[in-house]
Order: sequence, then structure tokens, then C-alpha cells
Amino acid sequence: MTFRYPNGKKYVPKGILGKTNSVKKDERFSNRGMTLEEDINETNEYYLTHKIAVIHKKPTPLQIVNVHYPKRSAAVVTEAYFKKPSTTDYNGVYKGKYIDFEAKETKNKTSFPLKNFHDHQITHMKRVIDHGGVAFTLLRFTIFDEVFLVYAEDILPYFNEQKSGRKSIPKKEIEQLGTRIPLGFHPRIDYLKIIDKMIENM
Amino acid sequence: MTFRYPNGKKYVPKGILGKTNSVKKDERFSNRGMTLEEDINETNEYYLTHKIAVIHKKPTPLQIVNVHYPKRSAAVVTEAYFKKPSTTDYNGVYKGKYIDFEAKETKNKTSFPLKNFHDHQITHMKRVIDHGGVAFTLLRFTIFDEVFLVYAEDILPYFNEQKSGRKSIPKKEIEQLGTRIPLGFHPRIDYLKIIDKMIENM
Repeated sequence: MTFRYPNGKKYVPKGILGKTNSVKKDERFSNRGMTLEEDINETNEYYLTHKIAVIHKKPTPLQIVNVHYPKRSAAVVTEAYFKKPSTTDYNGVYKGKYIDFEAKETKNKTSFPLKNFHDHQITHMKRVIDHGGVAFTLLRFTIFDEVFLVYAEDILPYFNEQKSGRKSIPKKEIEQLGTRIPLGFHPRIDYLKIIDKMIENM
Repeated sequence: MTFRYPNGKKYVPKGILGKTNSVKKDERFSNRGMTLEEDINETNEYYLTHKIAVIHKKPTPLQIVNVHYPKRSAAVVTEAYFKKPSTTDYNGVYKGKYIDFEAKETKNKTSFPLKNFHDHQITHMKRVIDHGGVAFTLLRFTIFDEVFLVYAEDILPYFNEQKSGRKSIPKKEIEQLGTRIPLGFHPRIDYLKIIDKMIENM
């Protein structure tokens, strides 16, 4: 069964006590069925255990309405609603810098739809830049298995054009604007290598 | 009705579409019944709107097991469980620095119990320091309405002593180790004023 957010995005459960997690360790080395989120979580875990950076995904924001307390077992949330995130999904610290990013994927071949981003997330990226943080997006074209890092500074102008009717960014422009991240084995998406170049110039 | 986390900590709902939020704007200026979390959220909102810093509370981590999709209305999470947080609750960026902290309150008069902190949060604070971030705790003695900022560097040694039986930090030592934050009207807990002094020396 597939859960979807109100915006249609697939919700991927991480498994309770390992029971509902259908991705077995041995199958993970091929990328079949791995979501961008899973790849990034694996990469962040690599960064953490190798003492490279401390970057975490924020939990899904939920509005809790009802909680049930069964005897002798854990509290169960029995009614909650998905809330729109007020920030991007990932943040943390790398070489003393504040790192903040959002990751999105599309099945489109020729362009990346802007509707994948919430208004709050766009506002948040602007604020992070204003306060001296490093803000960016990771964009995956699922069909080609290509991931691009595009700095917030470079992608934000496209959102301003949404008012005048822009709905997506052509893939060719993303290839120019951003940097393609070579996909690896471990870590899968080594995005901090790209960030290194920016930090050197800060 | 009061919801509690498995560790007994009170869960304070933020209100759905403003309906269940029982704290009305006009009542908020007195501190009666304001939790430390509410005070900090208000302070962070002040920092955000006054373009001082971008600091957010992370959502409560939940393991979602079941979601129901009623026709013509929003998806409802019908089964979810509280997870132990793997990081502290608050993080963000201030003057280009990565800021990370945990806030706890106690009704004790003479000491602060260490059991309020999860192991993961202690490990996380260590990592943040190692990567050049600013990590600290905000500790409130509810009865006196006193809030202290204690840097992670200064509080971490106490957790190491837990193995040899230490269960709390005497209030007198917190007064020496930390800095008392004068409580204000707006923002309520101006913790970044204390951080300024540290950043100057970085």
C-alpha cells in the first residue's frame, strides 16, 4: 500500500522495529526502487559515521490530535494530519557552515516542475542565504538517474517567474546552472564534494 | 486532556487551523502556563520576523504506520508511534553560524535532573561542537521562572559522570557554569544575546 501526502508525494515509511521495512540490506546496493530520500539518508549516515558532517532529515511535520495510551505498551497516535513544512527537509553543519537543502525528484525527461516546492520552502531558502548559510536543492531526474545540485541563489529567480506563468525549469538549463553529482556506491550522492568548492570561496 | 510522551514529557499541541489552540493571542503576554517550548517558539518567531536569525523547532519524530484517505478531505494518520529524537529539538543559522540547542525544564528547586536528556541528544551535541557549530542547552527552573544558557562544552562532562552515579547538576553549579537569561516581553527569552559574546571570540 502506498501512502501519499495531500500533494500526491509518496510517503515512504522507514519501518517499525525493522518489521515493515521492505528494503533488505543486501538489495540496497543496486539503486532499484531507492528513492532520492533513501539515497540521501544513506549519504548523511555515511557523513555522520565518517565524521564528515552532521546533517539530518527533519521529521515529517504532523499535527497530532489524538493519542491513545494502551496499558503495558507504547502510546499510539490515533489521529494526526500532515502539515505543510515551514522549512526545507534537511539541515546541519559541515566545516562550521550551516547547510540547508531540499531534495526533489521528477519523472519528467525534459524539465523540472516548480510545483514540487512549497512557498514556505522557497522563503526559507532566501532567509538562509540572508543569514550566511549554504542553501541548495538536489534535483533528480529519475528516468536518467541523474542528480544535480543547484544553489538556492541560482534556482530562486525561477520561482519569481512563477507569477508570470513559469511552471518548470528546462533540464538543459539545470545542466548549465547546477553541477551533476556523480553517483557512487558509498556514499551514493556525495553532494558535499560540490559544496567544498563553494566553501573555499566564502 | 494532556498527552504525554513515553518519557512522561507533556505533549503540547499547536492547534489545527487555529481551532484547538487554546492560548489566545491576548493572553500570551503573561507567562501563566506558558511552557518553555512556547516561549522559545515565540522568541524564534521574533528572530525570524525581525531578520535576526532563522531557527526552528524540529517536528516531533513519529513512525507512521497507517494513513486513511477520506473522500473530499485531508489524509488522516490513524496509527503512529513516538520515536526517540536522534538530534536536539532546535537548530538554525545565526550570523552565518550553525546554532543547535535543546531546551528542558524542571520543577526541582535545587538541581537539574540529567535524565531529561536522551543519549542521542548528548551524542549529537558532541558532534555539533566537533564540526564547528554552536551547541548549548536552555535550562528552566519552572518554580523560579529562571532560564540558564549552558554551553554544551560545559554541560557534557556531567553526562560522562552519569556512569559513576551522577543524576543531576546542582542549581548553584548551573548558575556558575551558565548565563542567566533575563526574561523579556518580546522576545521572551533572548538567548542570542548570550551567543553574541561567544561568536565574537570564534
